[in-house]
Amino acid sequence: MFRTKTCGELNINNVGETVTLAGWVQTVRKFGAITFVDLRDRYGITQLLFGEELNKDLEANPLGREFVLQATGKVTERSNKNKNIPTGEIEITLSSFKILNKSEVPPFKIEDDTDGGDDLRMKYRFLDLRRNAVKRNLELRYAVGRSTRNYLHENNFMDIETPFLIKSTPEGARDFVVPSRMNPGEFYALPQSPQTFKQLLMVSGYDRYYQIVKCFRDEDLRADRQPEFTQIDCEMCFVEQEDILSMFEGLVKRIFKDVKGIDYNESVERMSWEEAMWQFGNDKPDIRFGMQLCNLKFPAHTFPTKANIAHLITSDFAVFSEAETVIGIAVPGCSEYTRKQTDELTEWVKRPQIGMKGMVFIKCNADGTYKSSVDKFYNEQQLKAIADAAGAKAGDLVLILAGAEERTRKATSELRLEMGKRLGMRKENEFKLLWVLDFPLFEYAEEDNRWVARHHPFTSPKPSDIDTMIHNNPAIENAAEYLKHPYANIKANAYDMVLNGNEIGGGSIRIFQRELQEKMFEALGMDAEEQQHKFGFLLGAFEYGAPPHGGIAFGFDRLCSILGGSESIRDFIAFPKNNSGRDVMIDAPSTIDAKQFDELQIKLDLK
Amino acid sequence: MFRTKTCGELNINNVGETVTLAGWVQTVRKFGAITFVDLRDRYGITQLLFGEELNKDLEANPLGREFVLQATGKVTERSNKNKNIPTGEIEITLSSFKILNKSEVPPFKIEDDTDGGDDLRMKYRFLDLRRNAVKRNLELRYAVGRSTRNYLHENNFMDIETPFLIKSTPEGARDFVVPSRMNPGEFYALPQSPQTFKQLLMVSGYDRYYQIVKCFRDEDLRADRQPEFTQIDCEMCFVEQEDILSMFEGLVKRIFKDVKGIDYNESVERMSWEEAMWQFGNDKPDIRFGMQLCNLKFPAHTFPTKANIAHLITSDFAVFSEAETVIGIAVPGCSEYTRKQTDELTEWVKRPQIGMKGMVFIKCNADGTYKSSVDKFYNEQQLKAIADAAGAKAGDLVLILAGAEERTRKATSELRLEMGKRLGMRKENEFKLLWVLDFPLFEYAEEDNRWVARHHPFTSPKPSDIDTMIHNNPAIENAAEYLKHPYANIKANAYDMVLNGNEIGGGSIRIFQRELQEKMFEALGMDAEEQQHKFGFLLGAFEYGAPPHGGIAFGFDRLCSILGGSESIRDFIAFPKNNSGRDVMIDAPSTIDAKQFDELQIKLDLK
Repeated sequence: MFRTKTCGELNINNVGETVTLAGWVQTVRKFGAITFVDLRDRYGITQLLFGEELNKDLEANPLGREFVLQATGKVTERSNKNKNIPTGEIEITLSSFKILNKSEVPPFKIEDDTDGGDDLRMKYRFLDLRRNAVKRNLELRYAVGRSTRNYLHENNFMDIETPFLIKSTPEGARDFVVPSRMNPGEFYALPQSPQTFKQLLMVSGYDRYYQIVKCFRDEDLRADRQPEFTQIDCEMCFVEQEDILSMFEGLVKRIFKDVKGIDYNESVERMSWEEAMWQFGNDKPDIRFGMQLCNLKFPAHTFPTKANIAHLITSDFAVFSEAETVIGIAVPGCSEYTRKQTDELTEWVKRPQIGMKGMVFIKCNADGTYKSSVDKFYNEQQLKAIADAAGAKAGDLVLILAGAEERTRKATSELRLEMGKRLGMRKENEFKLLWVLDFPLFEYAEEDNRWVARHHPFTSPKPSDIDTMIHNNPAIENAAEYLKHPYANIKANAYDMVLNGNEIGGGSIRIFQRELQEKMFEALGMDAEEQQHKFGFLLGAFEYGAPPHGGIAFGFDRLCSILGGSESIRDFIAFPKNNSGRDVMIDAPSTIDAKQFDELQIKLDLK
Repeated sequence: MFRTKTCGELNINNVGETVTLAGWVQTVRKFGAITFVDLRDRYGITQLLFGEELNKDLEANPLGREFVLQATGKVTERSNKNKNIPTGEIEITLSSFKILNKSEVPPFKIEDDTDGGDDLRMKYRFLDLRRNAVKRNLELRYAVGRSTRNYLHENNFMDIETPFLIKSTPEGARDFVVPSRMNPGEFYALPQSPQTFKQLLMVSGYDRYYQIVKCFRDEDLRADRQPEFTQIDCEMCFVEQEDILSMFEGLVKRIFKDVKGIDYNESVERMSWEEAMWQFGNDKPDIRFGMQLCNLKFPAHTFPTKANIAHLITSDFAVFSEAETVIGIAVPGCSEYTRKQTDELTEWVKRPQIGMKGMVFIKCNADGTYKSSVDKFYNEQQLKAIADAAGAKAGDLVLILAGAEERTRKATSELRLEMGKRLGMRKENEFKLLWVLDFPLFEYAEEDNRWVARHHPFTSPKPSDIDTMIHNNPAIENAAEYLKHPYANIKANAYDMVLNGNEIGGGSIRIFQRELQEKMFEALGMDAEEQQHKFGFLLGAFEYGAPPHGGIAFGFDRLCSILGGSESIRDFIAFPKNNSGRDVMIDAPSTIDAKQFDELQIKLDLK
């Protein structure tokens, strides 16, 4: 061992001990004939004192930032104490030191506030990883994993490894494939998730399975997606939806406790997908604050008790009356916004990312009067009725968007989140969990004129919808009228867990009967032959005593980033890839040898 | 929840309780108007009693093997108790039951002694996994993983995930490669191990890293190899070899304790590679028994204190005198072997797998006389001298093989293991650990006329050999004389852990200086350009304060199989592949779509 102690453990109680430390030079400070060096390792920083004698050696062998040093000396009490760090009351008065390795001057500062840009830090990721901020993220990630494993172990889950070289069955996302040298012309695929394997483990009776496992999707990398990512993957036998919800809100609460020291004792809120879409405009609402959306044309959609004001919306004001949907939110305490402020908000919703043509506002003044950008069309009483419908109180500012339903709903949702942020209602250290339930089983892909599974093809419909699913599937003559088809109303036994407006996990009760699974594949446009080719093993397994089962998968990278208070999952991955799927540090992907092509019996076919 | 209790937890203390169980039908036994069913789940088996009333329902809905059943009733004391299982004193007198799913008749028996052949069980692996024997293996695997994680956690190791989509740098084994759609013409490789990444983590100061991680090698699958396999992968900073040995014998002892209940208190034996090769004929000796090899031509190689009997070996007996090497073992207590028995052994060593031309034996009779198959060439006194040199006592049988050094050593090693097995000296429940140390750093590949790294190119030479490594590398004129080159004597700071004759782990202290790493690459025939292309990131990292470090990796599958008392790692993998690298259950690898080829911009090039 090159050390007897780490740089994080010595304090006033160790004074007088002779110790050897090893670590990296963080700073070198000369004071006349003596020198102070801060020595850093994973565990902390300890101050070293080079006295006059050793200082001469230092002059012969000058230390630079990030040099690797071994140093022996006596723990002494400091005169100038630093109360901010655990080792701040002592220093080591050195008797000897040895430079174990030198360092070039790093291309950026190894400090919390670094001067290195993203690209530079990624190229020198091994230096970036030395920064405290990054180290804390990886420590948090380890703690989340450890907490997860402990909780699941205590609840009888078994970690069982599933294979990485599997079969390509692209459904939705693209597979990464791996040419097989031993089976020329054939390919493995890397798993997008261990879905079918964990279901087979349930058929095999393993009862409670988990894995913290890498998954792969060859998708174009929008912001903050990675081609390889990690899932906490779980499955249980003989359960109903309620059992899964209770087991896994338990998991997340345990993680809160172990990792953040938070007692999350309240019960986790629940909301149907329908409610989430109408009240918050998206399926992963941030419920740290209210400001719900009000569908002013059909307020019953959102606040069943509110008065119907549809007549006001279908009045002379064409912007409202001609719009498919009119949605308002009541922003608390903003009635005194200036013209400049409301103009700025109008510009904000007109940006291409939001895409609205304009915005209407109503100021609900503290004195009980109302002032609006559409005073020409509505009198004060009418404005009050609209503001009331939107749930506004005196002092609030009602913001109203109008247009096509889907876009308007999405835009109002974005506006709500923006206002929540501006008003400090999305607090970094507040954590609010939510279950979103009762998702539709299917979505309709109008361009392909077929149903697609909203979650995945293994998700079970609600028991009450099974009959419809099996017996009521008339052909669709006109794709545009798919909403009239019985399948449009089938609800799934599926659930998403949402944390602060981010989907952190999702799952479902699975289909476990061959007939129903075949119906599902059929609904997705897969004929019997394709079913057999892709999923014959699963259909076969369902004939040999498949138990009722269900599960969930959490996005591990995302969960860590939210707990760590960051927007970016990359900050929580030791060696992430960039938006082109490249690891710029090792320079991968890269070309391969002619011999490799030859052995794999493939060649390039570049366009 | 479909159950209130599992099938493994009820006993005499639960009598009188009303419970609901869910599981699989193991057996159905009719006795007149009543029926007994053994219901099985992961946790155990519980007997269900269908009384006369329910029996009628059973007749309408007959149960078959592996049906999935939910059953409610009262826990009752059995009249006919089964003391062999924890639930054997009770049964459930049912009040109701429900068939949750039916099952076809399984293609083989779901029992410890199954009638299913290997191929059939692999095709229906989801049924094979239901067998107790397989389930116990996976439970053991989980326990080994859990124990490993706990020990490493307590010792400050952090689990840090390294990437799976990396760069192809084939050295020795072939890489599996993955075409990159986003970077046409380029490929990722799947990691053969996280070697360079864990070293970078040390450069980054993470101090103690571990991972239980999948690795990939595209090699022809000899018996009991898998294209994907799992490693316990570890690395430490600021350590010397001794620190690693002590940390990781601690790990294995902890696993023995947690998983097998074994207190392995003795210290782990150590042996140099040289000793292992001469005394046991291979680098992973089974030291549960002695029977060491004696090099009769140069007995000093093995037993330094033994008399030199080389003159007897270089005598008139051509089989000995003309052989490069003559090696004997003393098999205890076998002096009374019959002619038939010694003939059979002679045939055994002549089989092609062993490849010897014959075998000489000397019986050291209990009465002090000697009898041999070469009585014509040696008198009794000479036979005694040879037998003494081989370490034989009265009652032993000395077996001697002669021929080319490498083959003879290997053959004698095989013979030793075979005799150890026949004599019951390789006890299944005895575990003996051994460190093999001081491996040569290089091997010479005569056909390619170049050095190859015996362990891997990142392994450090012994400190005393570093100077030779850097400054003493003359060109080799004649490949056959490579042994005279200074590099042939360089020893590595490398170590293997051996358990009962199997290598379960191996590692080394790493090179951490750029200059030495370049020398190593150079020795392996890599020019500066190739070094930069393949390992530029690592050489670069060594310039920014790389600390001394080292590590080890354990073969997780192999470790589990030995602890589980099995020869085959497949028995300890949930979904293994066969010898052609196929998963016959899901039928992978398989063909992919034209669209996939198109997007990846590759095509087949079948010979």
